[in-house]
Amino acid sequence: MTTLRKHSKLDTLESLKKANTEELEAALLEITESIDKLDQESAAAMQKRLDVKIKPTGSLGVLEDIAAQIAGIYRTSRPEIKGKAVLLMAGDHGVVAEGVSAAPQEITAQMFYSYLSGGAGINVLARHAGAEVICTDVGIVPPLDPPELMAGRVKNGAGNIMHGPAMTRQEALQAILTGAKVAAKAIASGINLLATGEVGIGNTTPSAALVSVFTGYMVEEVTGSGTGVRDEALKHKQEVIKRAIEVNKPDPDLPLDALAKVGGLEIAALTGAILEAAYQHVPIILDGIISTAAALVAAKLAPLSTFYMISSHSSEEQGHRAALQQLGLKPRLDFHMRLGEGTGAALMFPMVEAALKVADEMATFEAAGVTTGDF
Amino acid sequence: MTTLRKHSKLDTLESLKKANTEELEAALLEITESIDKLDQESAAAMQKRLDVKIKPTGSLGVLEDIAAQIAGIYRTSRPEIKGKAVLLMAGDHGVVAEGVSAAPQEITAQMFYSYLSGGAGINVLARHAGAEVICTDVGIVPPLDPPELMAGRVKNGAGNIMHGPAMTRQEALQAILTGAKVAAKAIASGINLLATGEVGIGNTTPSAALVSVFTGYMVEEVTGSGTGVRDEALKHKQEVIKRAIEVNKPDPDLPLDALAKVGGLEIAALTGAILEAAYQHVPIILDGIISTAAALVAAKLAPLSTFYMISSHSSEEQGHRAALQQLGLKPRLDFHMRLGEGTGAALMFPMVEAALKVADEMATFEAAGVTTGDF
Repeated sequence: MTTLRKHSKLDTLESLKKANTEELEAALLEITESIDKLDQESAAAMQKRLDVKIKPTGSLGVLEDIAAQIAGIYRTSRPEIKGKAVLLMAGDHGVVAEGVSAAPQEITAQMFYSYLSGGAGINVLARHAGAEVICTDVGIVPPLDPPELMAGRVKNGAGNIMHGPAMTRQEALQAILTGAKVAAKAIASGINLLATGEVGIGNTTPSAALVSVFTGYMVEEVTGSGTGVRDEALKHKQEVIKRAIEVNKPDPDLPLDALAKVGGLEIAALTGAILEAAYQHVPIILDGIISTAAALVAAKLAPLSTFYMISSHSSEEQGHRAALQQLGLKPRLDFHMRLGEGTGAALMFPMVEAALKVADEMATFEAAGVTTGDF
Repeated sequence: MTTLRKHSKLDTLESLKKANTEELEAALLEITESIDKLDQESAAAMQKRLDVKIKPTGSLGVLEDIAAQIAGIYRTSRPEIKGKAVLLMAGDHGVVAEGVSAAPQEITAQMFYSYLSGGAGINVLARHAGAEVICTDVGIVPPLDPPELMAGRVKNGAGNIMHGPAMTRQEALQAILTGAKVAAKAIASGINLLATGEVGIGNTTPSAALVSVFTGYMVEEVTGSGTGVRDEALKHKQEVIKRAIEVNKPDPDLPLDALAKVGGLEIAALTGAILEAAYQHVPIILDGIISTAAALVAAKLAPLSTFYMISSHSSEEQGHRAALQQLGLKPRLDFHMRLGEGTGAALMFPMVEAALKVADEMATFEAAGVTTGDF
């Protein structure tokens, strides 16, 4: 089963705020350097279990792949999902001043409250899947009420990336480790299947910038409409992203630096959540382009973390597919969604559970008295 | 809600066996001629409900389309799923004598028993979705024990289509109406969301033949490996299908005739189930190439029936995508599955339910106090 490991230092969100850059870097390194491969023996043992089920070999396709992956992640041929959660990270973006989003910034905080009251899309889809939604304000601009809601806030919104970096290196580290702490807390509570989600008006802009930086695709190829910009406005958004890259000069071989320059606080927190999941042997389902941009940073910081990722839908955002491809993943659900929040990832929960139920509940050829053969 | 309508005659499986061709044709016509369009008003009212939810307009994509479709099918803006079932039709195929399948014919009956004992893939995935599996032997070759299991059997296996027709016109009608009766019985028991499934060693061969006939694609373009034929064996399978088409000369404009010539008993039963679902205003989820071949026949017999169909996965069988395209549908799940039984369709149940929950459970902009706008 999953090994629960604890960071020696920086155990609380409060301690992250007091730490200096070196301490934060050490804490991140502790995670990234400990992420290891999947247990091939458990994965193979799972495949062996699947191969004697009454079906043509491999005929359940990706369901079988997922079952084997989770066996490899949990280090057991009999993996069991004990709890599921969407980790929803929230943050604002100074770049909305450039008119990159059709929706006003105030919506980030408004939606944050709606997640807490359970009426948003992600609440509905997570509930449908029997999963919790764990919301963290990593960098919303306006104050929240009650103030405890801001316990994870690193700063009041990322900087305007058209004119400078989104965050300092220290803030990026704090946001990453905040995400890691949130994931660690969820895992400590018994959750062993995670999904990524986010809210942040304007956040398809830094995401497209990161995808362009890490995949090498041109900005035009990876920039989509986000929450409703089209035609001229889309061209303008692309210009803003290009300018942000020119101004900040993010280097894909310095992932932390690139994230701080053209990323965002909630994106950084998702990177941290993904790394922590991998570190603690917990699979994590990726949602759309923002989550996948965060995953690109995670993969660059710790390449083995990709083995812990499960793709979900193919979002309507351009660049999402390019980002998945870079990670060696393929989208599995094609619902033309572009809501974010983790809604696409939440639809994947029942698929992952189905994969394990196949292994647990299907009869074997022997037990069912069905003829076996090479077919 | 769904209007329950009854056929005036041929109310039992027994009566179908005694009826003559004219009576059977009249019963089929009663169904096909009564299939009507969706209620646009209910579909529009559902879209209106979705448009005031706290999300960018249309951002839940296909989930919204499905919610509107089901509203249009049920004739209400507040559709409710009351029960779900996979209609699994079983039949054998004389064409296996030509070596078109790597698996022996005895497996059809063996798998039929396994569905009844609940240990097959479809049982696991249907159970996961809270759906029943309703199994009907329409044309297995060996006798089943107890004999009541054969209540729906029209004949002991379809003829070898390489040498002649799969069925007589009368048998095809009986098989279609058997499928319709099975669907009607399920609907009468309170089920209002159906999915198609099948078992029948060799049945990708007639399915590919039907897909080629109805889509106009070449046999090579729509013929896949089925249960494990590859390379030379695949070429041979394609030759068999081409020969079956040459010998039988199926005409796509005479769908019943084409089905009788190069189809199969379980395929015909699925055609009937689809038509009955449409007739009774019940949505039906299509599985892979065999189900979709049956849907092509249904669509030709009653073009409006396509509005009642919901696509599910993109099966590994070549030709499946071509068949879906012909129906105006797109695959939604990409899991590289090729098991059949309705396993791909069963994975779609939670998606359909998610679509309706979005409409029922998401908060409106007004209730949540979230800023609205054109985004």
